[in-house]
Amino acid sequence: MSRTPNNDREGISELTTGRLSVYLRCLTYLEDQGERTVSSHEMAKRFHLNSAQIRKDLACFGEFGTRGVGYDVLRLKHQLVRTIGLDRVRTVIIAGAGNLGMALADYSGFNTNGFHIVALLDADPAKIGRTSRQGIPVHPWDRLSSIVLRNRVDIGIIAVPAEGAQVVYDTFADAGIQAVLNFAPTQLRLRPDVKVKSVDLRINLESLSFHLKNVEDGG
Amino acid sequence: MSRTPNNDREGISELTTGRLSVYLRCLTYLEDQGERTVSSHEMAKRFHLNSAQIRKDLACFGEFGTRGVGYDVLRLKHQLVRTIGLDRVRTVIIAGAGNLGMALADYSGFNTNGFHIVALLDADPAKIGRTSRQGIPVHPWDRLSSIVLRNRVDIGIIAVPAEGAQVVYDTFADAGIQAVLNFAPTQLRLRPDVKVKSVDLRINLESLSFHLKNVEDGG
Repeated sequence: MSRTPNNDREGISELTTGRLSVYLRCLTYLEDQGERTVSSHEMAKRFHLNSAQIRKDLACFGEFGTRGVGYDVLRLKHQLVRTIGLDRVRTVIIAGAGNLGMALADYSGFNTNGFHIVALLDADPAKIGRTSRQGIPVHPWDRLSSIVLRNRVDIGIIAVPAEGAQVVYDTFADAGIQAVLNFAPTQLRLRPDVKVKSVDLRINLESLSFHLKNVEDGG
Repeated sequence: MSRTPNNDREGISELTTGRLSVYLRCLTYLEDQGERTVSSHEMAKRFHLNSAQIRKDLACFGEFGTRGVGYDVLRLKHQLVRTIGLDRVRTVIIAGAGNLGMALADYSGFNTNGFHIVALLDADPAKIGRTSRQGIPVHPWDRLSSIVLRNRVDIGIIAVPAEGAQVVYDTFADAGIQAVLNFAPTQLRLRPDVKVKSVDLRINLESLSFHLKNVEDGG
């Protein structure tokens, strides 16, 4: 990563990380379309983003573009891949082989381009030995530690009901997992050395509700 | 809703809507804890938010709090419920009764407090007549229009593979659904009168990847 006076990785918020992922998707699309350069204005216009925000975010990583030309699509894409850490493979396990765990195991983008799901784990004997549609195996819950150790698992996904989430989190932490994606709707007691990202899918429905209300109020 | 000179609903971005949902969760928590007032500073501190942003967002809805006292928790909560449009019930259907559709049908918060899932729809005869764990029935795909009409469905959820998503979207639109939550990883050709919110779960994994990379680079 190029270092610049502007470079302050500690200060980069989760919101910025999310935007970097969005820029990466835009650049991948532009690359597929055969585009070689793009200005912040073009990118903002095509993907409904804010051009000043794009310039500010990318400047944090020492990317300033060339006046009159813009950014080099491929170069910027590779820079974002490195910045987000997608230039290496992260191994992932999923706790919970119910509908949600199975859906996540086969979810597009969860087992590709930098992420590799090694197993689902479940305490239900009836589920052990099954596989997801794409062939990810379900292993017994009590084999967690050995699977984490053997596969150097980086990320654990919590796909169990709320009441089981804390035990899963603590077991992940004890096994040495450093990053957790939590789908259980519950407040976890966190440990300082294990990063958690909780997904709240309801927020998306609320956003649609807000839109519908505005349409109704306006009409 | 109270009208103020600051009130500009058209200009409220999706990002703001997302923050309103977060504030609503915070206020619901504070209410459960028996708190009656909260300042923007307290709220920012307790929930790791930005106090200036809170004041700015709430001022858009005519909520300025009382100097030295802060916001009235219950009043502000009810205001947010009305603003987001959660004071009425939105009916929802889910296209796709695979693992993802079934998981969403039973997902906490998808079938409560303003949202009511009336059915899953699937083209696979083997799935018709089943129910989700919480009892939401799977109906044949070709009954979509009549179900939407009879239940005045507001929101359709796309939980089918990418290759089927466009057909589902178009069928939703033809049936009169005005808001769509899309889980299929594909670019939809949109109609101007049907709002779509697409969920990209991979962004959460990328955020964790970014965190892990920073930990590694720092250590």
